[in-house]
Amino acid sequence: MAKRITNRKDDYSQWYLDVVKEAKLADHSPVRGSMVIRPNGFALWENMKGALDQMFKDTGHENAYFPLFIPKSFLSKEAQHVEGFAKECAVVTHSRLKSVDGGVEVDPESKLEEELIVRPTSETIIWDSYRNWIQSYRDLPILINQWANVVRWEMRTRLFLRTMEFLWQEGHTAHSSEKEAVEETRRMLDVYKTFAQDFMAMPVKTGVKTASERFAGAVDTYCIEAMMQDGKALQAGTSHFLGQNFAKAFDVKFQDTDGEHKYVWATSWGVSTRLIGGLIMTHSDDQGLVLPPKLAPTQVVVVPIYRNDDQRTEVLDYANPLIKELKDKGVSVKLDDRENQQPGYKFAEHEAAGIPLRVAVGPRDVKNGNLELARRDTLDKNIISKDGAAEHISDLLETIQTDLFNAAQERTENVTRDVESYDHFKEQIEDGGFIYAHWDGTDETEAKIKEETKATIRLIPINGESEPGKCMVTGKESVQKVLFARSY
Amino acid sequence: MAKRITNRKDDYSQWYLDVVKEAKLADHSPVRGSMVIRPNGFALWENMKGALDQMFKDTGHENAYFPLFIPKSFLSKEAQHVEGFAKECAVVTHSRLKSVDGGVEVDPESKLEEELIVRPTSETIIWDSYRNWIQSYRDLPILINQWANVVRWEMRTRLFLRTMEFLWQEGHTAHSSEKEAVEETRRMLDVYKTFAQDFMAMPVKTGVKTASERFAGAVDTYCIEAMMQDGKALQAGTSHFLGQNFAKAFDVKFQDTDGEHKYVWATSWGVSTRLIGGLIMTHSDDQGLVLPPKLAPTQVVVVPIYRNDDQRTEVLDYANPLIKELKDKGVSVKLDDRENQQPGYKFAEHEAAGIPLRVAVGPRDVKNGNLELARRDTLDKNIISKDGAAEHISDLLETIQTDLFNAAQERTENVTRDVESYDHFKEQIEDGGFIYAHWDGTDETEAKIKEETKATIRLIPINGESEPGKCMVTGKESVQKVLFARSY
Repeated sequence: MAKRITNRKDDYSQWYLDVVKEAKLADHSPVRGSMVIRPNGFALWENMKGALDQMFKDTGHENAYFPLFIPKSFLSKEAQHVEGFAKECAVVTHSRLKSVDGGVEVDPESKLEEELIVRPTSETIIWDSYRNWIQSYRDLPILINQWANVVRWEMRTRLFLRTMEFLWQEGHTAHSSEKEAVEETRRMLDVYKTFAQDFMAMPVKTGVKTASERFAGAVDTYCIEAMMQDGKALQAGTSHFLGQNFAKAFDVKFQDTDGEHKYVWATSWGVSTRLIGGLIMTHSDDQGLVLPPKLAPTQVVVVPIYRNDDQRTEVLDYANPLIKELKDKGVSVKLDDRENQQPGYKFAEHEAAGIPLRVAVGPRDVKNGNLELARRDTLDKNIISKDGAAEHISDLLETIQTDLFNAAQERTENVTRDVESYDHFKEQIEDGGFIYAHWDGTDETEAKIKEETKATIRLIPINGESEPGKCMVTGKESVQKVLFARSY
Repeated sequence: MAKRITNRKDDYSQWYLDVVKEAKLADHSPVRGSMVIRPNGFALWENMKGALDQMFKDTGHENAYFPLFIPKSFLSKEAQHVEGFAKECAVVTHSRLKSVDGGVEVDPESKLEEELIVRPTSETIIWDSYRNWIQSYRDLPILINQWANVVRWEMRTRLFLRTMEFLWQEGHTAHSSEKEAVEETRRMLDVYKTFAQDFMAMPVKTGVKTASERFAGAVDTYCIEAMMQDGKALQAGTSHFLGQNFAKAFDVKFQDTDGEHKYVWATSWGVSTRLIGGLIMTHSDDQGLVLPPKLAPTQVVVVPIYRNDDQRTEVLDYANPLIKELKDKGVSVKLDDRENQQPGYKFAEHEAAGIPLRVAVGPRDVKNGNLELARRDTLDKNIISKDGAAEHISDLLETIQTDLFNAAQERTENVTRDVESYDHFKEQIEDGGFIYAHWDGTDETEAKIKEETKATIRLIPINGESEPGKCMVTGKESVQKVLFARSY
């Protein structure tokens, strides 16, 4: 079979698209910038969603659902918020079509009195509800999460990484004190970090955004940033401390224990189907997708090899008890007994789909009491004994999960370095990766660096090495080094 | 505490709204016709979704996700389909807002070349994808489901029962033969019936719609219909045999085993958050919501009763092992140990929220080795021994589930009758309920009955009593009686 996936070194962007296509994760849709998430991609999202949802519930959150449409006037209520989102809004203006010769047209008589915006994010519609739900400190905190689709009109889109419509979760919490809201913001950042590292096997750096990279309407935006194989950083999740901005915009006050009426404190936090893009670019190789076992919809695929019906029966009788044993251990295992495809075709398909482990069983294995085991991540093949195979496979899945994280961690650390001078920075940034360097804390210097090098400040470390120094550009005082990279 | 829920007999519509409000299931939203699904309502939807999703997967379906926006031209491709949905479409015409003094306006320069429709249902966008996925009989069947939000511009809305935006699932399958597609359509109808009866404890009648009540673009629409307490029927789910209509509209052909290129056969089927409205109206009473145990987010609530800290400790020490034992049995149990609310307040709240069983434990119960158990459905209270209480409670939850179904079944059968003459029909229909009567099979007679009595044909039984007779209106031949009711 001809190689269907471009090599990373030849064309990284094409490689990414090839991996998505061959793994059948998603398609471009006829609506520019939208995508169709195919069953393989959606099963992956369901697993990510399941793990995250449990973590949200374990930290006391409940799910709810707020309307898709936001009245235009709501967006205007928080000045920075509307400025951030106005230029990328899908606007609903009419409510009917009418038939004309050969088709339909928008019915001009159905023009809405007030236009509706398809939510780009839900702070405004949610805080409008919170005003009705909150009277006293007894009603706080409110800890709500929503799984939803959102729309941001993007011109340059890319499957999963940047699409006009995407799926995400958005947490929106309300608190009686600044301290509690800041704690919540950081708690959810930690949840994202844990999810990224323990489930996605994707190492991340955490910190806080500069003012210019902040969410529109936030006081502080915390983030997790991951390093992709092409040396570019990916913002993988954000957690915002919103102060009292939305409470003031929507007039949400509570009566505190001291009897005073005070504005409520807020957070919001989100991750999206963009994570799938990050997952792909963290682990995959020139053979296609590589999935960490904890998120793989199918962890093990069993391929029977035979030449005739007798062999088929023999091989399946041999494999089926193992499959049952694996299922009993909670392993997600699939038997690929399709009759109309050759084993070689199946192997290539499972490789492209990123299934962590492949078990092949032929008549010789039956005779010798063996199995052939192939790891997707290392592409290593091994003959193992059928005795204790289920135990071995189950352990190996854990090993693969750890190995994937360690490999990604090592790759990230290999491209993370400190730089002292701006000349050195300009030279180094061409190689990609993360660079820690001193910055004077001004918007101007940040903008200059971005213009001259295309690198942005990905984050200011929260509890990082905080030795002060001199800004690499202006020589002015710098409290600590910050993290730079070119990014998606 | 003043009674906060209107009695059904006084004002059924207000009763419904009161139940929704007091159970904190949903709120009206500032966007006309949209609703906010609150955590209690959403947890219920999550349970319904979980059970249905498992049933879909058990019948071989996979989930996927298709775009929210449908190009206007797609809708026009199937003539009946566009006619059915054109008058209730949210239309996106622009992609940007711009700042003006004191707010934002739609930027006229961002007008789209082709307007986008917010999906009212996804047949068109999905069949456009299927064209790319299907070449040969080997690619069939495609068995896909999508969980999504859809928008239909409704003027007269009602929480859960009819809202502009609603959450639903829509299955879309593609088959190589008519027979297989019809089987799929009926299989999913059976899934809906099983779900309604076994999980929601809501008895349903099944059958096929008349031409005038068919889904726009379907050859046949099958449905489940339930009887509400006010004598009106509720269409609770539909499963459509779409023939080759969408395959023809989107030019989707496959090469069959005989080498011929043929149009693909299709089905689609869906249930929505409307089911929550049906659930409420099937079981609830003048005290508020009543939930069947299989879907209740909290099945058992434990309320400790005490006057001082010593009693509190004593009562909680007594209740906690029971709570653990219930959890180990897979019962969803919650301890309501809020300090700032009185037991009476808690009782009323749990009653309004429909929690199937309440356990109250006070110092006297501790002394006597007892518990007080209150059933939400019958409002019966019983003192039981703590010994074996977990077993008893777990069994009782099953009993409640069965009792709820039986009660609803009995109520439905009590208002289901056969009628022979149109005069009798007109008299009987005023009392609500289901009526079986003969109909001559014409649109005209159906329309006349609807106009004169507000009753519609809910369904034509599939395997019902099929004795032929004479139409009650025209006296013409009738193959079998059909099911009439006034409906939501």
